Amino acid sequence: MLLAMNVIEQQFAVRYQYRTYFTQGLLAPANSLLAEVLATPGGPVGCLAVVDAGVAAAHPQLLAQLTAYAQAHPQALAFRGAPLVVPGGEAAKNDTQWVEMVLAAINDRGICRHSYVLAIGGGAVLDMVGFAAAIAHRGVRLLRVPTTVLAQNDSGVGVKNSFNYFGKKNFLGTFQPPVAVLNDADFLTTLDDRDWRAGMAEAIKVALIKDRAFFEQIEADVPRLNARHLPTMQAQIYRCAELHIRHIGQGGDAFEGGSSRPLDFGHWAAHKLEQLTHHQLRHGEAVAIGIALDVTYSHLIGWLPQPDWQRVLALLARLGFALFVPELAQQLHQPQHPASLLSGLQEFREHLGGQLTIMLLEGLGRGREVHEIDLDLMRQAIGLLPAYQAQAHEHLAGGVVGYSYLPGL
Amino acid sequence: MLLAMNVIEQQFAVRYQYRTYFTQGLLAPANSLLAEVLATPGGPVGCLAVVDAGVAAAHPQLLAQLTAYAQAHPQALAFRGAPLVVPGGEAAKNDTQWVEMVLAAINDRGICRHSYVLAIGGGAVLDMVGFAAAIAHRGVRLLRVPTTVLAQNDSGVGVKNSFNYFGKKNFLGTFQPPVAVLNDADFLTTLDDRDWRAGMAEAIKVALIKDRAFFEQIEADVPRLNARHLPTMQAQIYRCAELHIRHIGQGGDAFEGGSSRPLDFGHWAAHKLEQLTHHQLRHGEAVAIGIALDVTYSHLIGWLPQPDWQRVLALLARLGFALFVPELAQQLHQPQHPASLLSGLQEFREHLGGQLTIMLLEGLGRGREVHEIDLDLMRQAIGLLPAYQAQAHEHLAGGVVGYSYLPGL
Repeated sequence: MLLAMNVIEQQFAVRYQYRTYFTQGLLAPANSLLAEVLATPGGPVGCLAVVDAGVAAAHPQLLAQLTAYAQAHPQALAFRGAPLVVPGGEAAKNDTQWVEMVLAAINDRGICRHSYVLAIGGGAVLDMVGFAAAIAHRGVRLLRVPTTVLAQNDSGVGVKNSFNYFGKKNFLGTFQPPVAVLNDADFLTTLDDRDWRAGMAEAIKVALIKDRAFFEQIEADVPRLNARHLPTMQAQIYRCAELHIRHIGQGGDAFEGGSSRPLDFGHWAAHKLEQLTHHQLRHGEAVAIGIALDVTYSHLIGWLPQPDWQRVLALLARLGFALFVPELAQQLHQPQHPASLLSGLQEFREHLGGQLTIMLLEGLGRGREVHEIDLDLMRQAIGLLPAYQAQAHEHLAGGVVGYSYLPGL
Repeated sequence: MLLAMNVIEQQFAVRYQYRTYFTQGLLAPANSLLAEVLATPGGPVGCLAVVDAGVAAAHPQLLAQLTAYAQAHPQALAFRGAPLVVPGGEAAKNDTQWVEMVLAAINDRGICRHSYVLAIGGGAVLDMVGFAAAIAHRGVRLLRVPTTVLAQNDSGVGVKNSFNYFGKKNFLGTFQPPVAVLNDADFLTTLDDRDWRAGMAEAIKVALIKDRAFFEQIEADVPRLNARHLPTMQAQIYRCAELHIRHIGQGGDAFEGGSSRPLDFGHWAAHKLEQLTHHQLRHGEAVAIGIALDVTYSHLIGWLPQPDWQRVLALLARLGFALFVPELAQQLHQPQHPASLLSGLQEFREHLGGQLTIMLLEGLGRGREVHEIDLDLMRQAIGLLPAYQAQAHEHLAGGVVGYSYLPGL
């Protein structure tokens, strides 16, 4: 009898479904999208809005618009109190007071597992608010309204949330899909040039590992992107979001149980650089440098032909991305030193878990993973970037949008 | 073109699988179960052990056994440093220092998403450690070794973790299945009588809503259970765990997206009573009172026949459970008052979300949900319990295990 009763098997699947909508004028009372997404037969759902302070400053009418929208759609939603306003950027993810503030509002205002948290902001704010929403009552419903290029084309359409802890980016977090994502292109018009540009690094990243045609489209679009042509950016965001969403849903490992995370091409160095620059580099800017580094390494190991390598660096430079910052080159001969970029390899492995897995390129649109990095070649790759950055920027004739992060200045 | 590109659909399923093992002498070097569960082709996995202080005190050899076990199975596991010891009971879930301690150890000792946290303890410790494991690196692997009846038959075999916050039980938490659950019956032998008894409330609960034969088995087993006959308890734990595991896996809502939570029969009052008694009542003790109350209410609304109602109360009393504590009766005419048991209905609704959904009984083994509670009848049900408790305990001839929580004494 004991043998027969020594194990009970458990097995089940949890199904997730959510839509990413593309719209403009999301909060115009006549735009019914938000009301339609929220509407339930049971009457208006309770909502807590959390707004990125940077977005609120750029759109001074936003908080009033939220109130007006709820008044115009009383059958769909009812805000529980005034919107919370939290700092934008990594500040939102570094200080526990902001998570506490969102949790306290969820508690005080009676936001339950069938109520909604409506998060409006850049990727960092969406990450932090999403984390709070995911752990309150074991998960209250989350609607994301990403306001930056990066949040609309990548982080905001995915299934993760996070919070920085112990000085480590995204040390805390969960996998918890939103109920819906609402991408409003109007928010892009007020981005500063750095944020307009930074998110494109993720589009270049996903194009390089999955879609050569998309890479070539971005090359062709450079003049329009640098001139801030909105429809061109909207199309790029759509394609980039689509590639990310497909990978998550059809890649077979939505919640990243394995050691492979192809969408993190260029990210091992990016995460470390954000840390080393104390987030003076934005995520997308760091990803651009990470891409520059890993395509260079891909070339040095003989995978990526010289012309393809040069095309990638040229595209990044033409869009105004820096390809090098001094933090890349410090402590390179002490790869375990926390100030060394190379220690980012270990941190990346640890965060993903299991075997070190780094995505490289064997062609434009063709990613391929490795499990070992030759540190000497990586140092050589780093050494090539300053010269190339100088050369690239020298040859550019006026096409470069001003780049405002110059370390040391 | 804009119309064609205005929405991207996302849809995927995440599959979960885990086993609950029943064993004895889990940490004896000759017992290969733990090593087999952990073994991977890549060599020994890194482990962080977190042990309930009460368990460590009752099993003074436990910490040394962990070390010896790893030495006996070096190909399977390697502990990363000494075990953490954390307080048992709700103390573990009330003070953030314990979550912080587990998170810090995960960080300091390089526990990655492919490493393991091995949690050994009662339900509260497993909840707290599980919460820390679920949010570090977006989830590191969790092995649960439940040491109480309640943890082995219910909370430890499920998919939830939690932490108390804002004075509310389980305000924080996630759904995150363990990699495996290892139920070692030897831990039951050192439980005090309260913990031996308390967990049986969950067995009675699941029997009442799902399995009349199991209820009758428990009735028949009372003398052996009160005499602490281990094989009888092992069989009860197995059946109770099986019913819980099946409900979670086959009930169609493992992560509780809906408003219904049948396994929480008796729990709306139980959660509130734990809070009102400042956790002087253990969870199982509170559940027993919650069951007594909701079967009485089920009788008063005409669902549960008088003899069945009496059988349930008699079984609880014969096992030594209290059926009443004074906190049940305070502020009953102010149902919104935080000191009123009746405010627990609103808190329960809010924690589950959506419509109020309370499980009642229409027969032994037949649960049925309602969405409204008649407060007058509920007050009447509460009023019946003190007399019944006195009468039941008076008629019991020596079969009652001493009941140590007598409020006011």
